[in-house]
Amino acid sequence: MNRVIVDMDEVIADPMGEMISWYKEQYGLEIDYNKMLGGSWLKGFPVQHQDMIRERLMSEGFFRKLPVIKDSVRVLKEMNERYEIFIVSAATEFPNSLKDKMEWLFEHFPFFSWRQLVLCGDKKLVQGDYMIDDHVRNLRHFNGKKYLYTSAHNLDITDYERINNWQEAADIFL
Amino acid sequence: MNRVIVDMDEVIADPMGEMISWYKEQYGLEIDYNKMLGGSWLKGFPVQHQDMIRERLMSEGFFRKLPVIKDSVRVLKEMNERYEIFIVSAATEFPNSLKDKMEWLFEHFPFFSWRQLVLCGDKKLVQGDYMIDDHVRNLRHFNGKKYLYTSAHNLDITDYERINNWQEAADIFL
Repeated sequence: MNRVIVDMDEVIADPMGEMISWYKEQYGLEIDYNKMLGGSWLKGFPVQHQDMIRERLMSEGFFRKLPVIKDSVRVLKEMNERYEIFIVSAATEFPNSLKDKMEWLFEHFPFFSWRQLVLCGDKKLVQGDYMIDDHVRNLRHFNGKKYLYTSAHNLDITDYERINNWQEAADIFL
Repeated sequence: MNRVIVDMDEVIADPMGEMISWYKEQYGLEIDYNKMLGGSWLKGFPVQHQDMIRERLMSEGFFRKLPVIKDSVRVLKEMNERYEIFIVSAATEFPNSLKDKMEWLFEHFPFFSWRQLVLCGDKKLVQGDYMIDDHVRNLRHFNGKKYLYTSAHNLDITDYERINNWQEAADIFL
């Protein structure tokens, strides 16, 4: 079975979307999507609030209640029958997120087992046949086929093949 | 820099030793080390108490207060200057252990960063030049040089090169 490495944030879970909805409701201010280009969606928030946003990101519970990216459950459930799937999340930067991420995954994707989850800091030690990730820094060192999952912060990247949504992933993998 | 994958339990942390000390104090019963052979130190405990031992292993806090394996801090501190070290722990089977393991690591090994920790279920997707682990199931799929770190449960294994203690690791790597 071919192995597919799937990222969590901005690929199957939506911390950026959750943060933006919350922020708009709390502050009524707009997000500058152009400032996200370069890799960090935090930079789309007004400068004076970025520390607060980061703090919220670090808090216990934040990653437990995230929205699921559209169609990811349906497509990954089917992919899980045909591929060896690993969900690999660069999570150790956020110690409070570890258990939240695990519980979130098994709530929404109950067909995955604990054997299929990897919480790490750096993805360069991961090997597989395919990787789906929204960050070039994670794809760069990968030795298999790489797909950049489209997100507001990576729209300027031109040198990677893209997956724009999970229906496209289904067209490729199923 | 060559990459060294180092296991946590029974290699730098000592959950088995901690559990045995606690058990002897609580129950005054002996451990049968022969029954551990085959890979699981839980089997060394009397059958009627294995569920309780497993429950204690799953409880929050257990992995936070473990003894450190002798000389591991000193040797890994020096290795960390000359190799790319990753601490890789099969931890997702124990959701309550995730944050405990992270805090434990940074308390005792403050020279490691969050980028060097991997908490996973299955180590077969990890690649590197060297792996030090007490379980054959983790070493089996590894594509680099493998070292079996000696532990009571693996004394019957003959087909792997061994590291018996961290002084021996220093002799090999430093």
